[in-house]
Amino acid sequence: MTDPVLVEMLRGNVVESVHRGAAVVMDASGKVVLALGDTARPVFPRSAVKAIQALPLVETGAADAYGFGHAELALACASHSGEPRHAELAAAMLAKAGLDETALECGAHWPTSQSATVALARTGAEPSALHNNCSGKHSGFLCTCCHEGLDRHGYVGAAHPFQDMVRQAMQEVTGAEHSEANRGTDGCSIPTYAVPLDSLALGFARMVTGQGFGPERAKAARRLLEACMAEPFLVAGTDRADTRLMDMAPGRIFVKVGAEGVYCAALPELGLGIALKCDDGAGRAAEVAISAILQKLFSKDGELVSKLSDVSNPQMTNWNGIHVGSLRPSAALA
Amino acid sequence: MTDPVLVEMLRGNVVESVHRGAAVVMDASGKVVLALGDTARPVFPRSAVKAIQALPLVETGAADAYGFGHAELALACASHSGEPRHAELAAAMLAKAGLDETALECGAHWPTSQSATVALARTGAEPSALHNNCSGKHSGFLCTCCHEGLDRHGYVGAAHPFQDMVRQAMQEVTGAEHSEANRGTDGCSIPTYAVPLDSLALGFARMVTGQGFGPERAKAARRLLEACMAEPFLVAGTDRADTRLMDMAPGRIFVKVGAEGVYCAALPELGLGIALKCDDGAGRAAEVAISAILQKLFSKDGELVSKLSDVSNPQMTNWNGIHVGSLRPSAALA
Repeated sequence: MTDPVLVEMLRGNVVESVHRGAAVVMDASGKVVLALGDTARPVFPRSAVKAIQALPLVETGAADAYGFGHAELALACASHSGEPRHAELAAAMLAKAGLDETALECGAHWPTSQSATVALARTGAEPSALHNNCSGKHSGFLCTCCHEGLDRHGYVGAAHPFQDMVRQAMQEVTGAEHSEANRGTDGCSIPTYAVPLDSLALGFARMVTGQGFGPERAKAARRLLEACMAEPFLVAGTDRADTRLMDMAPGRIFVKVGAEGVYCAALPELGLGIALKCDDGAGRAAEVAISAILQKLFSKDGELVSKLSDVSNPQMTNWNGIHVGSLRPSAALA
Repeated sequence: MTDPVLVEMLRGNVVESVHRGAAVVMDASGKVVLALGDTARPVFPRSAVKAIQALPLVETGAADAYGFGHAELALACASHSGEPRHAELAAAMLAKAGLDETALECGAHWPTSQSATVALARTGAEPSALHNNCSGKHSGFLCTCCHEGLDRHGYVGAAHPFQDMVRQAMQEVTGAEHSEANRGTDGCSIPTYAVPLDSLALGFARMVTGQGFGPERAKAARRLLEACMAEPFLVAGTDRADTRLMDMAPGRIFVKVGAEGVYCAALPELGLGIALKCDDGAGRAAEVAISAILQKLFSKDGELVSKLSDVSNPQMTNWNGIHVGSLRPSAALA
């Protein structure tokens, strides 16, 4: 099955590029509200499921033991831009468990934000693992290991007992099998498992409603999503789509990007989960697609629909500020 | 018509993302050697046609008047990484015409090379228009304007007499109409015209053979392609695909990337032109696709085929240097 075009990029009046993909919106009972393309094909959710991967941090009591509030939990679910606040908060989380950045096994890279990279370079410093976009997630992982008395060394490995906890949470929430056959290694070295978009949408519908969960998990899930919605900057960063979308409708939209064109979302007032993947892995298209789906689902709220257009129909200017084109949802999505 | 998958990206053993597109290989008589997908649909060639756009620089005599050799002509055809040698040579070209960077109308941006950006930031400097990846092309444009006695101001505008010269060269070489209806504005502010891949492949077959050109144009075209093949670093930069591919087989492969997943190429010994576009605009896929096509066309040269694998089948490692996946040509291309 060939997935439909979800997003078009225009230059002048000509469609220059197109992005195909699949998307599904589901409630916690598994009822499909919207589906496009092949939503049963396994896809790697990558960073879009960090909120699910953070469940052990809350459920073990580690988050409370270290006094973590919204900010720390949001960073534990983040793919941040490596701006100073992100790196500093990750360091502070590690310090609570008596650790520092040398414990991180995510690897170092320059901030994904170019202005943060330039600012860091101007200080003469090199980037550390704290600037890795996943440093908050890894700090949460390390805090959980310490709290649970697990040997933290090698916590990123698929065979490490901590990754068993993460995998178990992922399987229970999504209902999808996480097997060795569908396992890959993520950019930050932890395992990632390819599962159907349907399972991811269902998982996020459960995360936001608590339906099908015991009371402890329901509370932990809600706490993590609320933390992200309360601290959108910490989940992503300056001018990032996650931050902009959650800022637009405080407490009403949870969204999380994943590498290679993935987006997941959860909508408290509608009790819905969303998962999408652009076949080509394009992040620019995934941002347009998730925003277009949000426009459909919130169609009765004209003000929000209008705000969402900033992300669903971005205008492109060149280095001289001249308007050269735009991205837009395809007819299938609009 | 849905274009075929040209390139797959694997993570672990799972295909994580796919890239569709169209590609055509043609000789200067218009005989098609290889075609995949819809090669008649107009696409913006973007920077892939800089060598054609540089014809007026040579044909007017400007290049000779300013003493330009391989290096300057290669930079005039480049989408460079903004490394010091690139920026310095662009400044030197402008100086020959009595100009400096303030004459450039391409806009300023940080070098596309992250290490060049970090190095520049460490000096405390801001990027200038010399760091714009198109500064060599624009320096060539400005030198041509000065040599021809044209008012250089506004030389990027579609209605400027200099852009008439560029458009005329593009039309004559490709045989495709360059009309207002298929015009867009490029990142560096000059007009770009959507034309069929077939016309682009034909144009590059003509550029490399001179077939169908008068003697002056044939000489100018060959001189520009030879300059690029002699100075691959100046056409792109450190670790860039254009540079690597032309370095692999000196004088045998001319390639030039364009934004949004475009590649054009010309092969002297085979007398062939190539043009391809990844539908989604992905540069990573365009690099794999052009290299896979080169492997097909040079299949009798085992050593070159083996070298080309470095670009046609790149291995992906994460921030810790762990192997996580690869890109590969699809069955349709392999």
